[in-house]
Amino acid sequence: MRLLIVNPNTSADMTATILATAKVAAGPGVQVDACNPLRGPASVEGQFDEVVSAYCTLETVLPIADQYDGIVLACYGHHPVIGALREALDQPVLGIMEASILHALPLGDRFSIVTSSPRWCPLLEEGVRALGVEQRCASVRSSGLAVLDIAALSEDEVVARLCAEARAAVEQDGAEVICLGCGGMAGLEQAVSEAAGVPVIDGVRAATILVRGLVEAGGRTSKRNRYRRIEPQPAPGLPASIARSYGGDRF
Amino acid sequence: MRLLIVNPNTSADMTATILATAKVAAGPGVQVDACNPLRGPASVEGQFDEVVSAYCTLETVLPIADQYDGIVLACYGHHPVIGALREALDQPVLGIMEASILHALPLGDRFSIVTSSPRWCPLLEEGVRALGVEQRCASVRSSGLAVLDIAALSEDEVVARLCAEARAAVEQDGAEVICLGCGGMAGLEQAVSEAAGVPVIDGVRAATILVRGLVEAGGRTSKRNRYRRIEPQPAPGLPASIARSYGGDRF
Amino acid sequence: MRLLIVNPNTSADMTATILATAKVAAGPGVQVDACNPLRGPASVEGQFDEVVSAYCTLETVLPIADQYDGIVLACYGHHPVIGALREALDQPVLGIMEASILHALPLGDRFSIVTSSPRWCPLLEEGVRALGVEQRCASVRSSGLAVLDIAALSEDEVVARLCAEARAAVEQDGAEVICLGCGGMAGLEQAVSEAAGVPVIDGVRAATILVRGLVEAGGRTSKRNRYRRIEPQPAPGLPASIARSYGGDRF
Amino acid sequence: MRLLIVNPNTSADMTATILATAKVAAGPGVQVDACNPLRGPASVEGQFDEVVSAYCTLETVLPIADQYDGIVLACYGHHPVIGALREALDQPVLGIMEASILHALPLGDRFSIVTSSPRWCPLLEEGVRALGVEQRCASVRSSGLAVLDIAALSEDEVVARLCAEARAAVEQDGAEVICLGCGGMAGLEQAVSEAAGVPVIDGVRAATILVRGLVEAGGRTSKRNRYRRIEPQPAPGLPASIARSYGGDRF
Amino acid sequence: MRLLIVNPNTSADMTATILATAKVAAGPGVQVDACNPLRGPASVEGQFDEVVSAYCTLETVLPIADQYDGIVLACYGHHPVIGALREALDQPVLGIMEASILHALPLGDRFSIVTSSPRWCPLLEEGVRALGVEQRCASVRSSGLAVLDIAALSEDEVVARLCAEARAAVEQDGAEVICLGCGGMAGLEQAVSEAAGVPVIDGVRAATILVRGLVEAGGRTSKRNRYRRIEPQPAPGLPASIARSYGGDRF
Amino acid sequence: MRLLIVNPNTSADMTATILATAKVAAGPGVQVDACNPLRGPASVEGQFDEVVSAYCTLETVLPIADQYDGIVLACYGHHPVIGALREALDQPVLGIMEASILHALPLGDRFSIVTSSPRWCPLLEEGVRALGVEQRCASVRSSGLAVLDIAALSEDEVVARLCAEARAAVEQDGAEVICLGCGGMAGLEQAVSEAAGVPVIDGVRAATILVRGLVEAGGRTSKRNRYRRIEPQPAPGLPASIARSYGGDRF
Repeated sequence: MRLLIVNPNTSADMTATILATAKVAAGPGVQVDACNPLRGPASVEGQFDEVVSAYCTLETVLPIADQYDGIVLACYGHHPVIGALREALDQPVLGIMEASILHALPLGDRFSIVTSSPRWCPLLEEGVRALGVEQRCASVRSSGLAVLDIAALSEDEVVARLCAEARAAVEQDGAEVICLGCGGMAGLEQAVSEAAGVPVIDGVRAATILVRGLVEAGGRTSKRNRYRRIEPQPAPGLPASIARSYGGDRF
Repeated sequence: MRLLIVNPNTSADMTATILATAKVAAGPGVQVDACNPLRGPASVEGQFDEVVSAYCTLETVLPIADQYDGIVLACYGHHPVIGALREALDQPVLGIMEASILHALPLGDRFSIVTSSPRWCPLLEEGVRALGVEQRCASVRSSGLAVLDIAALSEDEVVARLCAEARAAVEQDGAEVICLGCGGMAGLEQAVSEAAGVPVIDGVRAATILVRGLVEAGGRTSKRNRYRRIEPQPAPGLPASIARSYGGDRF
Repeated sequence: MRLLIVNPNTSADMTATILATAKVAAGPGVQVDACNPLRGPASVEGQFDEVVSAYCTLETVLPIADQYDGIVLACYGHHPVIGALREALDQPVLGIMEASILHALPLGDRFSIVTSSPRWCPLLEEGVRALGVEQRCASVRSSGLAVLDIAALSEDEVVARLCAEARAAVEQDGAEVICLGCGGMAGLEQAVSEAAGVPVIDGVRAATILVRGLVEAGGRTSKRNRYRRIEPQPAPGLPASIARSYGGDRF
Repeated sequence: MRLLIVNPNTSADMTATILATAKVAAGPGVQVDACNPLRGPASVEGQFDEVVSAYCTLETVLPIADQYDGIVLACYGHHPVIGALREALDQPVLGIMEASILHALPLGDRFSIVTSSPRWCPLLEEGVRALGVEQRCASVRSSGLAVLDIAALSEDEVVARLCAEARAAVEQDGAEVICLGCGGMAGLEQAVSEAAGVPVIDGVRAATILVRGLVEAGGRTSKRNRYRRIEPQPAPGLPASIARSYGGDRF
Repeated sequence: MRLLIVNPNTSADMTATILATAKVAAGPGVQVDACNPLRGPASVEGQFDEVVSAYCTLETVLPIADQYDGIVLACYGHHPVIGALREALDQPVLGIMEASILHALPLGDRFSIVTSSPRWCPLLEEGVRALGVEQRCASVRSSGLAVLDIAALSEDEVVARLCAEARAAVEQDGAEVICLGCGGMAGLEQAVSEAAGVPVIDGVRAATILVRGLVEAGGRTSKRNRYRRIEPQPAPGLPASIARSYGGDRF
Repeated sequence: MRLLIVNPNTSADMTATILATAKVAAGPGVQVDACNPLRGPASVEGQFDEVVSAYCTLETVLPIADQYDGIVLACYGHHPVIGALREALDQPVLGIMEASILHALPLGDRFSIVTSSPRWCPLLEEGVRALGVEQRCASVRSSGLAVLDIAALSEDEVVARLCAEARAAVEQDGAEVICLGCGGMAGLEQAVSEAAGVPVIDGVRAATILVRGLVEAGGRTSKRNRYRRIEPQPAPGLPASIARSYGGDRF
């Protein structure tokens, strides 16, 4: 089995970190590769960044996607490239936010997401609604950290901030499970779990395990309604990587 | 007052049609211009097209946006470029789906959307949920027409198909108002209204009138939470039109 | 175009204030008149007042309604006379609560209402639910002011109370737009907006602009289901103004 | 114990029918009286009728309300006079729609309402939402009968129409209990129950039994928030029956 | 009329207390008996206890159920034996949580439940959702008391703890009615009501009154869908009390 | 890793079938055992059966649970023993209904469940609500087959019935993924998928893969709130297997 972990921002360091986590999670016998776009924002911090990074991610992923049995989109949120890739491809495509929630649901009644910067809170709340699981969500909380801070600050500082928010989610909001709301938080589960006294889920690990399981189970993206195949049509001026999805030189 | 009507697909014919509708709706004393991207799909038929057209639309709109007091995004749906433009700009930005619903709500208890191709139904249903108004939505129905069919077929055929679905929405689903779910349906309101016996809303007309009103009322996009300003950051490899929004040469 | 602004309480001073706001909002070329019932409570502070003022408002409005193209009901809330007038009339009828929300929705993800006395909070919360937009509502907050206090207190005091609640709505509840929840708060938008750092909507202004736009767009109240025409029937003992709607002397 | 059954329309025949049902339901040892306004529509068929009949009902009920321990409002729907009476009075006030639902909930998972004319469907659906029990409601169905038809047609015809709709509610909508959606349908429970094969609830009977139970349990309307006492204030031109609730000659 | 009050735990003292409350509530002319299982937990404190006590309760109740016209399950919560008994029996079966809510709904807009130990909060919240009335629920609060504490502590201490939580529910959560969330709290309504300033409902009293009323109204559990009759089938190894429900020696 | 597959009914044949499916799903390196209670109904067909089988399942599972790293409850539905086991144990416990939904969610927007007998429909609908994912559920449909029919009928007949319902779910209800709503349907995925044209999920396979993944990820049941540890207390008359969970001879 071959899995592709896609980091939609241009930070190669983050890609490397995510890949390391995913390789451990996938276990032996699964080949795991990672990629990121060469163009676009260094960090996805809002809807503008989502739109820009989604396009640049398509440029990078579409030419190589056929080599993989399953794809993980390693940006915590309801990133629009997830839907675009599900239309363009047949194999399972899983976002790390969705995956962390799917792993949280059987372990407790309600989960909270502890994310990086406060600007993500309304977007993640909308993401939870888009997944249709808002009744199971106790809260979305920001640790006040920008995504790139997580790499820049000492791990102790980052962990202390996350632990404080996780405890607040448990004690004030009634969270029974915590989802770490950023691809760059992998590896901090145990420390946060000890501080908060509840299970803690990392989305990269959860997504890798889940997509591997979906592939084993023969899962394919449904081509009815929401993720129907792309309509072939004229689409001038696009790079070949994207134009091919529109039927390429047929128009 | 200057308004910009943005067609996110590359069909210049459709842009011209939409502009004509918007000019009539805006009335005297308002300058209305229209544009569309030069690259990208001829029609937006799904999430892949949304992502591609959103990026191409930013390339076209960002350099000229400052000249306008309000912006209409003339693609029927919860297009991701709406959120991106709201982050990038201060003036009101209104999508035609949102606008048609805002005009429908005071005229009846429940509205239905009659759209073009069936693949739009799940996307529009999610759009209605994202707007938080699903309790007021009686149904989303497809007329079975592709977007470009609407230009290609005789108007009689198009109208007949729309009227049949609109009547079904009223009689079977309980719709009290019909929203025409495609930017290319402008001008058909009266015919459909006579067939269905209820008010019919065209999104381009509604959006133009609503954005004009928001501008008159001094409305500005809120910069708290959901539409906070774009975070300046390194964003390599992007065209100047988009890079400028990231702080340009500061990185 | 002729618009009628209806104040359902008997305070002629408030009617004059509201009319002044509406005239400015309507702009040139629109005739704006206002009226209030001669009988009934000086202020609408609850459901009992709603029922009494609704009846008295019908006595006043029905005889003159045909002279107008659109009607604004200038009481902040889900006032029962709105539905009654929509049944009795064909032209658009807009309440100022509904209008303020329709103007708030495109400017941010979630709005809060800052109203006058605490007794309005549960009624406005039910009004928000009746409009089906509760997912977009961050909170309903009371400034602790009775409606008539707003006229009685110094403007500075009123503004200070409203600003404090608006800031709390933004900082504690996540509001991105504030709706002023009382017809008597018109003119305070700018002061509150500066204090709270988000757009602020006055319902009288929003309703006047919106109803003008609906009239321009040819909008009519749907006569299917919810706002069907009044059933002619015997209705003894009623004043002529109301009896006429039942078919008058036919029974 | 003394109970007052209030018919808000002016049909004395219907008042007598309802009273007979209520007396049987209340059983021995409870005095049951009934009244209806002398002015207003013969039948409540929409929101305009609700507003008019609510005012006229207040004129009739307020002068005598203190003599009763509990009050039933015998109009099937979310009639605005219910809230007005709850503000004006301390003893329990129960509508027959609410009562029929409270009796239906423990007998099955989902109920349907079979009402008279189709115009009631959207109003009853909103009433179900206002009660917050829409998840338990399978459907609201109209028998196509106007309220006064129920008295005019032969009982056989009425019963046949109701049975057909009740069966459809059970077989097509999944209803497990049927609520008869009109005060004039009392006495038809058994016939409809036999036809539909599920329990059938009459609102007048349910409301009488429930309000008697609430009185026995010492139940009083809560005076916090939603049903706070009426604010004393100037309220010119009102009849003494209503003016008294505003503090009467104090203003 | 004969009513059976079922305490699903093995505390005979609590059974006696509940029976005393129920007898007073039922009034003259109604025979009220009570029972509890001889095996199982002394107190129901969670889902494990629910499962164990449900089975043991069936052993006790099934052999005698036919002698009764109505049954009250006196454990505050969405206890699984309620559904099992509704399948097994025809007469009305009412839980005390459901009953307290049905009595609270007409007395105010929103209710809060003040329960014993904190572990009940998530279960009662799910129970409120299962009843489909979560929109009317302001909060579920724990007094920090274990069920058996309520018997062990001085009444003054118990009352003080309950009053503090009830006041918090009213002042912070907007509750207009309080439901006492434990069968052992009967008799404390007045003290809590005086402290909190709102009506207070005891579930045992409410359930007894309500089931008596349902029996008077001829109410039977619907045998469509949710509470269909038990399917006769082989069920080896079960005691006769339970085996009989499966068709006994037929298999 | 050791996984235990629990069939809560007494049909040893079904246990063997389920075990075979689970072994294939778990893959090499995972030991999979299965068990079923020796007492109780041969098939779980409703809430009465759930209560009886839950108790009997505890008798069987509790003595051996410590030997396993993860547990699958192989009854399609919101079976009460799932919550009881989550309280009693620390390792992940997964029901096959929940698992099938977790595998369906990333593959399409909306899923339908095709179950065996019609009596399961309302229970599965409540189960979907209890999981908080009703917005993603297109429908719950019955194939009209009793659970044991699935073993008794020819596979061709069973498959034909399931395919017909699956097609109806896709074409009439908008399902994009089908969940097979019965533990005895394993192995039919491919046939149904070909007939319906969408992915089809078997709960036993999904649950085995998911619980294996949760164990690999270090997942433990949260002991906050909903699944807190069982309260030690007197619990007379219970078999040792169950009594031990209450602290055994300490009381």
